[in-house]
Amino acid sequence: MPNKLDEFRSYRTRMNARISEIDHLGIKRFFNLDTAAYKDEALDPKTKELLGLVASTVLRCNDCIDYHIIQCIEAGWEDAELYDALNVALIVGGSIVIPHLRHAVETIDTVRDEQAAGRQ
Amino acid sequence: MPNKLDEFRSYRTRMNARISEIDHLGIKRFFNLDTAAYKDEALDPKTKELLGLVASTVLRCNDCIDYHIIQCIEAGWEDAELYDALNVALIVGGSIVIPHLRHAVETIDTVRDEQAAGRQ
Amino acid sequence: MPNKLDEFRSYRTRMNARISEIDHLGIKRFFNLDTAAYKDEALDPKTKELLGLVASTVLRCNDCIDYHIIQCIEAGWEDAELYDALNVALIVGGSIVIPHLRHAVETIDTVRDEQAAGRQ
Amino acid sequence: MPNKLDEFRSYRTRMNARISEIDHLGIKRFFNLDTAAYKDEALDPKTKELLGLVASTVLRCNDCIDYHIIQCIEAGWEDAELYDALNVALIVGGSIVIPHLRHAVETIDTVRDEQAAGRQ
Amino acid sequence: MPNKLDEFRSYRTRMNARISEIDHLGIKRFFNLDTAAYKDEALDPKTKELLGLVASTVLRCNDCIDYHIIQCIEAGWEDAELYDALNVALIVGGSIVIPHLRHAVETIDTVRDEQAAGRQ
Amino acid sequence: MPNKLDEFRSYRTRMNARISEIDHLGIKRFFNLDTAAYKDEALDPKTKELLGLVASTVLRCNDCIDYHIIQCIEAGWEDAELYDALNVALIVGGSIVIPHLRHAVETIDTVRDEQAAGRQ
Repeated sequence: MPNKLDEFRSYRTRMNARISEIDHLGIKRFFNLDTAAYKDEALDPKTKELLGLVASTVLRCNDCIDYHIIQCIEAGWEDAELYDALNVALIVGGSIVIPHLRHAVETIDTVRDEQAAGRQ
Repeated sequence: MPNKLDEFRSYRTRMNARISEIDHLGIKRFFNLDTAAYKDEALDPKTKELLGLVASTVLRCNDCIDYHIIQCIEAGWEDAELYDALNVALIVGGSIVIPHLRHAVETIDTVRDEQAAGRQ
Repeated sequence: MPNKLDEFRSYRTRMNARISEIDHLGIKRFFNLDTAAYKDEALDPKTKELLGLVASTVLRCNDCIDYHIIQCIEAGWEDAELYDALNVALIVGGSIVIPHLRHAVETIDTVRDEQAAGRQ
Repeated sequence: MPNKLDEFRSYRTRMNARISEIDHLGIKRFFNLDTAAYKDEALDPKTKELLGLVASTVLRCNDCIDYHIIQCIEAGWEDAELYDALNVALIVGGSIVIPHLRHAVETIDTVRDEQAAGRQ
Repeated sequence: MPNKLDEFRSYRTRMNARISEIDHLGIKRFFNLDTAAYKDEALDPKTKELLGLVASTVLRCNDCIDYHIIQCIEAGWEDAELYDALNVALIVGGSIVIPHLRHAVETIDTVRDEQAAGRQ
Repeated sequence: MPNKLDEFRSYRTRMNARISEIDHLGIKRFFNLDTAAYKDEALDPKTKELLGLVASTVLRCNDCIDYHIIQCIEAGWEDAELYDALNVALIVGGSIVIPHLRHAVETIDTVRDEQAAGRQ
């Protein structure tokens, strides 16, 4: 049965394909630049994904949080490290961040369940 | 001659002392919690200061950027690494972040000048 | 079958009626002022609706995006022009805007489908 | 039949329990500090809950709005007073707040219906 | 010698006069609506000014904070009550609010100094 | 005598040169993409600069407002049209935008004074 994260993933894939089809040069170049920002340069990709997660959390965007949690876990961050990063976001952003903390913890659990079920 | 960063530092020190004097339990406990968030736990303090810098940048707060740049440089981050983190913040936050990128780069230069002058 | 946009439209109509029923003078006057802001004055309504769409997008409010897309299409903006305006919003607001870009493109497609089906 | 507010309440309860289980000292202390901020000190809890509602509304967080509406009604605020506070939030925050005003009015109605049905 | 608050007051007075001169109907009506929002209705003006202060603080606008502190003190709020309201704003908005807390406390002190000097 | 806008212009020029010197590929590409977003495509540059002004105003960034006002006036927008666009931003963004409306009107006046003095 598809979980909430699956719905996000399929919606994201479908709409990104649709945006690509629109073929607006500026939008396409921004998407490339966005991908490039997390590549290995002065900082390694693992560190950068954690930066992306904290930025997404203080800006309170659940879809962005989901995306960066998936990337962070793929990059090798442990749950305790993710919680510690989310705590920084919580302190910087305040109680208005709490609903997004709930969402982030739920998503971490979902990805770990998927891993346990051999899905990733 | 005091630079802009010195003005921030002396204002910050003076007003934090004044806030401490007010003696509001909730405010004091929040300040302690804020300090504690960057201590060594699952993540090390160096990584956490970089998270703080990116969070401050996407939320567009120059005073917070200054504070975290000082902490990041003390923690040992190189300029190229700070620029790479600021690039993540720029991509996440967009062109509205550019004035704060200018401010951040100016502050990095000021702190390095102070170091070269033996001030730190 | 009602689509997501229909749900938004019926919810919006129902709750605006409920808010009107509450009869708070300040709220009613603000709603009137909001409507008036997009009327023909120094700028024409078509230009103003595009301003409303970009403002809604950088502030990341899907309901507001939907409302202004409907208005923009009624005012005669072409899809390519809407995409170009959304690109400005994306560059100003950064990657945190991407989930709202996906939503905006989906809504444009829905309104065009409705037009093709003779619904508008 | 569970309404939207029931879904929020059960999700909030379940995920707060999960966050508590995670046992991150900083997060737990922040949750305690958040609860303490609305206790009787120089200001009474009733006034503070209204401050929390307005802060949540201008920051445009529906879950936070729901939480503070429940607290405000328990604290004894009348609907007309809540609408008047929401009007302040609307004027401060502008038309981008309107979708959250709709949500807030719906939640007030839901809580009143629950009270009429003897649920609270 | 004019303090920082005097500079804000004279700038505000001068530019509001200039905006009035521009004579844009929508802008003028919004300014009237803004003033009206803090008048005696279901809530009293004293409570509303405190709501305005907290909204301004979580939205991190120093000019708005200064304006509402002046109004709050005229309305009769004590310093301890203002600090308690600012603590709610700090908890809701997080450490990113701290620079504005420093500003708010400085402004409260300035207004009290003016009162002691018989200026208000 | 240099006005406030001159200070912004010289600071902006100096720090953009410094950022260019840093030579971070991602940052440089983002600056190019930002410039490109306002070029003639489906929408003309004049319309796009107005979109940039409204986006900057609702996001409450004075430096960005100044930049886009200069561009808007060069593109041929009349003062009455700029005020009408700022009114849309005011209604969307609320009273928290007022300090930035004051700043925007001051900058429009400064640019017009410079034009009258033959500086532009």
